[in-house]
Amino acid sequence: MNISLLTDLYEITMAYSYFKSNRNEISTFELFIRNLPKNRNFLVSAGIDDIIKIISEFHFTDDDIKYLKSLKLFSDDFLDYLKNFKFKGDVWAIPSGQIYFPNEPVIRITADRISAQLLETIILNQFNFQSMIASKCARIIISSRGIPCIDFSPRRDHGIDSALKVAKVSYICNFIGTSNVLAGKIFNIPVYGTMAHSYIMSFSDEETAFREFLKYFEEPVLLIDTYDTIEGAKKVIKLLKEGYKIKGVRIDSGDLVELSKKVKQIFKNEGFDIKIFLSGDLDEYVIDEILSKGAIADAFGVGTKMGTSSDAPYLNGVYKLVEDEYGFKIKTSPGKITLPGKKQVYRIYKNGIMEKDIIALEDEKCEGIPLLKKYIENGNVLEYEDIENSRKFFKENLSTLPDYLKTTRKSEIDYPIEVSDKLLKIKQELILHNHL
Amino acid sequence: MNISLLTDLYEITMAYSYFKSNRNEISTFELFIRNLPKNRNFLVSAGIDDIIKIISEFHFTDDDIKYLKSLKLFSDDFLDYLKNFKFKGDVWAIPSGQIYFPNEPVIRITADRISAQLLETIILNQFNFQSMIASKCARIIISSRGIPCIDFSPRRDHGIDSALKVAKVSYICNFIGTSNVLAGKIFNIPVYGTMAHSYIMSFSDEETAFREFLKYFEEPVLLIDTYDTIEGAKKVIKLLKEGYKIKGVRIDSGDLVELSKKVKQIFKNEGFDIKIFLSGDLDEYVIDEILSKGAIADAFGVGTKMGTSSDAPYLNGVYKLVEDEYGFKIKTSPGKITLPGKKQVYRIYKNGIMEKDIIALEDEKCEGIPLLKKYIENGNVLEYEDIENSRKFFKENLSTLPDYLKTTRKSEIDYPIEVSDKLLKIKQELILHNHL
Repeated sequence: MNISLLTDLYEITMAYSYFKSNRNEISTFELFIRNLPKNRNFLVSAGIDDIIKIISEFHFTDDDIKYLKSLKLFSDDFLDYLKNFKFKGDVWAIPSGQIYFPNEPVIRITADRISAQLLETIILNQFNFQSMIASKCARIIISSRGIPCIDFSPRRDHGIDSALKVAKVSYICNFIGTSNVLAGKIFNIPVYGTMAHSYIMSFSDEETAFREFLKYFEEPVLLIDTYDTIEGAKKVIKLLKEGYKIKGVRIDSGDLVELSKKVKQIFKNEGFDIKIFLSGDLDEYVIDEILSKGAIADAFGVGTKMGTSSDAPYLNGVYKLVEDEYGFKIKTSPGKITLPGKKQVYRIYKNGIMEKDIIALEDEKCEGIPLLKKYIENGNVLEYEDIENSRKFFKENLSTLPDYLKTTRKSEIDYPIEVSDKLLKIKQELILHNHL
Repeated sequence: MNISLLTDLYEITMAYSYFKSNRNEISTFELFIRNLPKNRNFLVSAGIDDIIKIISEFHFTDDDIKYLKSLKLFSDDFLDYLKNFKFKGDVWAIPSGQIYFPNEPVIRITADRISAQLLETIILNQFNFQSMIASKCARIIISSRGIPCIDFSPRRDHGIDSALKVAKVSYICNFIGTSNVLAGKIFNIPVYGTMAHSYIMSFSDEETAFREFLKYFEEPVLLIDTYDTIEGAKKVIKLLKEGYKIKGVRIDSGDLVELSKKVKQIFKNEGFDIKIFLSGDLDEYVIDEILSKGAIADAFGVGTKMGTSSDAPYLNGVYKLVEDEYGFKIKTSPGKITLPGKKQVYRIYKNGIMEKDIIALEDEKCEGIPLLKKYIENGNVLEYEDIENSRKFFKENLSTLPDYLKTTRKSEIDYPIEVSDKLLKIKQELILHNHL
């Protein structure tokens, strides 16, 4: 399926008007997030890999053109133009795995106006969603205090594309793998999983189920909460005493703090050191709470609430015209004022920790490390992203995050974001001009 | 892309154990929702169309098998079995567009145990998500009091599959169409859209932008809030007086109640009756509120909050073993007790309005209309779903919904769901047995 038509119709009607009136000048659009969602102190870039691929492969098939013709909105010369369409502009972005903040440009596209316009919807669709998931995962990684997390979300993710990309993004954000086999195949990331309650229930009793499973898998993780968790643990001990190798047990319901402590103790009392794997409605809030209360865990299976970013299920990323051949551009709708001009974000570190960011015009000289990187030049991809590299990059970046931002609740201090004097001045002048 | 591997790994490890130990007896699994999400009084079935297609086409490619082999978990005889896998069971479901409630089986699959198990994840992925969206859309349709709604969500939906299916599901739930062109093409549903703020901003001033757009589109909807909504409306009046045909204006920001009233009045004063199109962070709560306060609207563009079901971004649907050749099955984990046996849901109407539902065993004689319908028999599809039929079906069903459930907040009265005496008795016996 060619996805280039996955766009709001207005992108094409606007493109048509630009085409007919020869207004296809070079323009710059920037994607940024308006504000931090609930409880978030920072955001994490993600999906740049997909966006680079989508832009470089963007085209319309004969079938797409036939459909557009059927809408009876567009002339044949425009449809011919679309048939031969290829992106020839420049794309800059903050790489996947980097930390960023509202109002900072995350993706910057400079291209003929039609090209930049036609990409808007699909870029927002991919970035808003993937960055939302990455931002959620970073919080879960922080709350889990080094205990490995695994993506268990496919059954609650919003469809197929979502399930695949949640697995990928969570892996970039230092989850150790996923239960999603197709994601394992496509992205070459580790897959995990052993048994469900239905497996246990398919046998006359729990012990028979465990014995049967042990016939076919070496050192599995056994699910012990189908009927009674403590009784389940006792059956595992019986099997361990018989010499079976069992890697761990999974508890998926009930009071995870009490049950994990009791189960660990029961095993310890008998001299067995086996792993405790916790799952069931986990997110950063629950993990933080149960660990604070002394829950014992060697790994977490994190599903629904991560895969849907349930407490903040969307990012309000927008894609705005900031400059064209006629000059700087600004929108002044109430509460929706934008920063004009082609921009770069500079980050200043102190002793290896993020100290502040400066949003400046692209050509300003500014201290700090520039965050936006050029991925596409004149339509040619300079660099694709690699999942393993993004994963390492995220880990490095997370280690530079100041402690005051590492909370599941809203930090009392905001991370400092400055706007350069030059940029502020241009903004004020434009606001004045628009209201004259 | 073949999506049959979009499954949790444990479905395949369990299937392997069933295969090796010859435990592939006929079993029945049912999908149901555990409880109503926040503020919801009912749910709407959706995605049955996709699920029927996915089940009937379910297979593993050579490439899938090669990947599974690389995991070094499975023997060659099992991989050969998967290579020749085809679903040969029966599938029952409550059709897309029907209203249903927690604990009611919505999908029932009777098949050899391996088949039923391998389908779990993908069925949950599609149903949980699509039914969540349908349930959200039904609320928006109720709150919008007959004013047409259009899907504006692609830029915030969770990926590509999500954006396509949100468009489809919202159309089934009586939205009049979508901004999503690819969805329009694939599902043959109406597409809508005219211009964005960036279009207006690309011209030296708003009036020039309007004039340019009017050259290429007959009777468009013009966006009037880029700089100042009232000034925007005055420019539209100027153009109307010059004889241009303009269908309506769109307001996307600011106080929608005050602005829509003022704008309507301005047009009325000049003798023009043009449509007011409202958008910008709308959902059932906002629509209800602004209409109560007298907002004027001829259509709503509903995006982010609908496409992510933002106040309740997941349904906790589960898929449980309820019966196999050894008898009825039940799970007794705390808070997760299931209803055993192959079931049917009967709905009793009074004067055309839903009165109560009865959950009973499939073979019980029961008053009322059975909701679950057979879609697949011995692997053969008896019926595919058609979007236009589902749309009509939803409309009919919504007209039978009792008034006390038509609120955006939790209804004070729950819709009555009974469990048949026979089913209750079996459940009690099984609970007793499991705890002995």
